[in-house]
Amino acid sequence: MKTIGIIGGMGPLATVDLFNKIVNMTEVKKESDHIHILIDNNPHIPDRTAFIMGTGESPQSELNAAAKRLEKAGADFLIMACNTAHYFASGIKKEINIPFLSMIEATAKTLENVKKVGLLATKGTYEGRVYSNIFDEYGIEIINPSEEIKTKSMEMIYALKSGIEAFDENKLDFIIKYFEDNGASKIILGCTELPIIFKNYEHREKIIDPTNILANSAIKYAKEL
Amino acid sequence: MKTIGIIGGMGPLATVDLFNKIVNMTEVKKESDHIHILIDNNPHIPDRTAFIMGTGESPQSELNAAAKRLEKAGADFLIMACNTAHYFASGIKKEINIPFLSMIEATAKTLENVKKVGLLATKGTYEGRVYSNIFDEYGIEIINPSEEIKTKSMEMIYALKSGIEAFDENKLDFIIKYFEDNGASKIILGCTELPIIFKNYEHREKIIDPTNILANSAIKYAKEL
Repeated sequence: MKTIGIIGGMGPLATVDLFNKIVNMTEVKKESDHIHILIDNNPHIPDRTAFIMGTGESPQSELNAAAKRLEKAGADFLIMACNTAHYFASGIKKEINIPFLSMIEATAKTLENVKKVGLLATKGTYEGRVYSNIFDEYGIEIINPSEEIKTKSMEMIYALKSGIEAFDENKLDFIIKYFEDNGASKIILGCTELPIIFKNYEHREKIIDPTNILANSAIKYAKEL
Repeated sequence: MKTIGIIGGMGPLATVDLFNKIVNMTEVKKESDHIHILIDNNPHIPDRTAFIMGTGESPQSELNAAAKRLEKAGADFLIMACNTAHYFASGIKKEINIPFLSMIEATAKTLENVKKVGLLATKGTYEGRVYSNIFDEYGIEIINPSEEIKTKSMEMIYALKSGIEAFDENKLDFIIKYFEDNGASKIILGCTELPIIFKNYEHREKIIDPTNILANSAIKYAKEL
């Protein structure tokens, strides 16, 4: 069984969520059936969106450092609990000698026969074409949301990063309806804080949770299933 | 701010619980106010109770290896998400050059004016005197439970380790009543799986959760409060 390395801390609640999903989704009969997981939860990595939008320093060197720490500690492959940080994935891959499993690729692979999706994400993820570059290859169209939708998404995400967990469900309904009206058959929670916000949200059948998909892919790869 | 290293995986759900408690109890205004945490979630460490009861191999070398990996990766101090494993804490301390914060000591320190407690734990924790040795120093008496109580505790703990999360509340009520009848003013959930089982349990006012206490101590120490 392979050891998973998680580049985390962006934010910490999202890392808890990914870790929790891997542990809960692993089929076990006894403790030792679980997977060895190394986590570098570093909340001091510079803000990814700020850099992509041209207003902050690059997180690349801190991301590379976390990846190398995990490889050195014995990780057999790496995953990352942050969508926006996947903008820097190619830079990370150059620094390591173990595989890196992309959350974005893993998500695209699950969307067979889906032609058009809505994407809820940070401005950095939109602007950096984190999903678009990969989804283009899979022939999946991403609806380009209005500035209003982008701003509402950012507000929800950064509220959670600041420790606020109470949300206005009307805001969520508004966003979901916007994407539905624009022809989305699925809506991607393209920021790892969002599945936490959407945890108790009722309209789940249309919603795709990339953290869940990544957890599932990582378990399969670690157990060589 | 210091970096926390967590020796985990014993079991993984308990490590998720400790990680989650640290993240949720850290007061933050923004992501970077959180603490850098390194986690070695290794579920392949030999069973602690089996060794103490004379029926399994020693986990000491695997515990030492995890501690050294975390120190090398940059942890400034270590904590451990397993009560029974504290039996091996002195062996771990000899191998590292950074402080180790004991969950058992942290718990004893919070029990000012408490004279008599009930302890729910693995047979390894009872037999290895993990709590007794330290609580003796603090003048806190631990009620020695009947074999029936010990067996009921073990059944609950190992059921969770095997992935079963549905519990018979009557079993819990029976144990709580036993300790109350024997004069306990507080009942310690002395196995890191137990706070997960007791999560939704109603009789909480008498219950002490060492994972919670350890999370709180680790935050204070990391932030030098």
